[in-house]
Amino acid sequence: MDKWLVGVDLGGTTIKMAFINKEGDILHKWEIPTDKSEKGSKIPADIAKALDERLNQLGKTKEQLEGIGIGAPGAVSSQDGSVYVAVNLGWETNFPLKDRLTTETGLPVVVENDANVAALGEMWKGSGKGAANLLLVTLGTGVGGGVIANGEIVRGVNGAGGEIGHMAIAFDGGIQCNCGKTGCLETVASATGVVRLARKALQTSHGPSILREVPELSSKIIFDAAKENDELAKNVVNELSHYLGFSLANAAAVINPEKIIIGGGVSKAGETLLKPLREHFQLYAFPRVAEGVELAIASLGNDAGVIGAARLVKTKLGTEA
Amino acid sequence: MDKWLVGVDLGGTTIKMAFINKEGDILHKWEIPTDKSEKGSKIPADIAKALDERLNQLGKTKEQLEGIGIGAPGAVSSQDGSVYVAVNLGWETNFPLKDRLTTETGLPVVVENDANVAALGEMWKGSGKGAANLLLVTLGTGVGGGVIANGEIVRGVNGAGGEIGHMAIAFDGGIQCNCGKTGCLETVASATGVVRLARKALQTSHGPSILREVPELSSKIIFDAAKENDELAKNVVNELSHYLGFSLANAAAVINPEKIIIGGGVSKAGETLLKPLREHFQLYAFPRVAEGVELAIASLGNDAGVIGAARLVKTKLGTEA
Repeated sequence: MDKWLVGVDLGGTTIKMAFINKEGDILHKWEIPTDKSEKGSKIPADIAKALDERLNQLGKTKEQLEGIGIGAPGAVSSQDGSVYVAVNLGWETNFPLKDRLTTETGLPVVVENDANVAALGEMWKGSGKGAANLLLVTLGTGVGGGVIANGEIVRGVNGAGGEIGHMAIAFDGGIQCNCGKTGCLETVASATGVVRLARKALQTSHGPSILREVPELSSKIIFDAAKENDELAKNVVNELSHYLGFSLANAAAVINPEKIIIGGGVSKAGETLLKPLREHFQLYAFPRVAEGVELAIASLGNDAGVIGAARLVKTKLGTEA
Repeated sequence: MDKWLVGVDLGGTTIKMAFINKEGDILHKWEIPTDKSEKGSKIPADIAKALDERLNQLGKTKEQLEGIGIGAPGAVSSQDGSVYVAVNLGWETNFPLKDRLTTETGLPVVVENDANVAALGEMWKGSGKGAANLLLVTLGTGVGGGVIANGEIVRGVNGAGGEIGHMAIAFDGGIQCNCGKTGCLETVASATGVVRLARKALQTSHGPSILREVPELSSKIIFDAAKENDELAKNVVNELSHYLGFSLANAAAVINPEKIIIGGGVSKAGETLLKPLREHFQLYAFPRVAEGVELAIASLGNDAGVIGAARLVKTKLGTEA
């Protein structure tokens, strides 16, 4: 019997789950709401229950499952698979996710940070296919990142590897970031950041722009306007690309990746983002590094999490073909 | 019989060689001049000859040797151990170092970039002892770097991993770098770079400074003056620390290292450099990353190269204990 891998992508609103075969194909996919009550303590039992129900529906037993890989929105301890803190889930300090989920399901469990998991997913089945050295940056509410070097996730000494969103892009001050510092990439390259850049542009310039007519600005509206050749919107996208290109070029000098993959909601802008981003990246990247790398939009969308999580089971539990 | 590892550190002036045991202790160490004539083509034969002579002197044969690890001043192909280009040695394109040295010596050979090798040496026996995630930056004529993640060298897709010296530190222009870009860290944080910063400070300020009396500025003279509380020299060291701290904080956000090790000639300044560097690093580093990392001066000095090269033999030729 060819066993299935379980991929779980733990988010603040929903928990995405999938049964995936060893080639990385999704066989069954579903999601459940994230119950954050009681400081998120019910989450492991909820996952276990959802697994049982789905197996029942399919007329299968746990025997069918090789193990569970799970991506969590926080820094993960490589020692014991606990999550240091995950504000979005109500987890305060060192939530023992691996232990709790192992107890609840009776299956082997591998825990990893969600951005790292998405990077692994894109490496296995998405835009990063086959690249043993890659960088994923996700432009969403915040800016996250995952790094793969020599085919392995770079977790770092305390689970903060790939924190691209907190690279510095200002020498003196800059905008206050949630992390406590100022001048982080996240303050200008997240969905919130691009709206901030647009607001500032609208205030400091007096040129015409369709953005002036919009009751509530969003990253999507700004990129759509840029695509329609709105000058002010194009300048905003250019400014974002300038900062993002600077940070990605600097990250690339460190790990010399074959692929840089842009994911998250903002990446839906596609070429409207990629074209100016490539130009600015080129400006700041070490020539030999620039030669070797391809910038691309993530291709797995919301499935990157469950696919990457399943891949964790394959590699970490020694079932690698 | 406990076989020896051969470590070779290939420089533009001398080739450092050593016999090293599997615990990483140097048993015999010597050097030969680098013969760069005929486009550096004699180098492999020179190394082979030096090995034979030394074995003879010690009454040993090649049977005593496990293999050769060698660090070269250029980007190295992980496919065939050739060196893309090494201007300092006269090697123009894809010098087949591994093949040539294997033929000349009859021993297994592992080739790696010299900064990566130094990082490996410091990880094995120096300031980085035991750290599976570390960053080495060497401040010499240029600024080099080596990255270790998950205990392995991060070579990247085309041998340019750890090119810390070519991280960007200026948004608009900046000083012309040898790499073809402008605004690289190397233009201000190398031995040449710090002299450049000092010259500029002497021109643009009119305060007193012992540096005004010096016929020829050098990095050592500038750091010595800073140590003696010369205000202008202290400002120069501060400016260098500002740029270096910015780049190292950004590199650390990518790989979350346990140790950042500062090597090369400029690092001889010790605490005069480390103290302001730590302060600036702290300013730009993601808090969780800053918590996990220690900045330290390299401890192996010129031996990092041969020790790291020997370590290559141990890990890459499958003789790992």
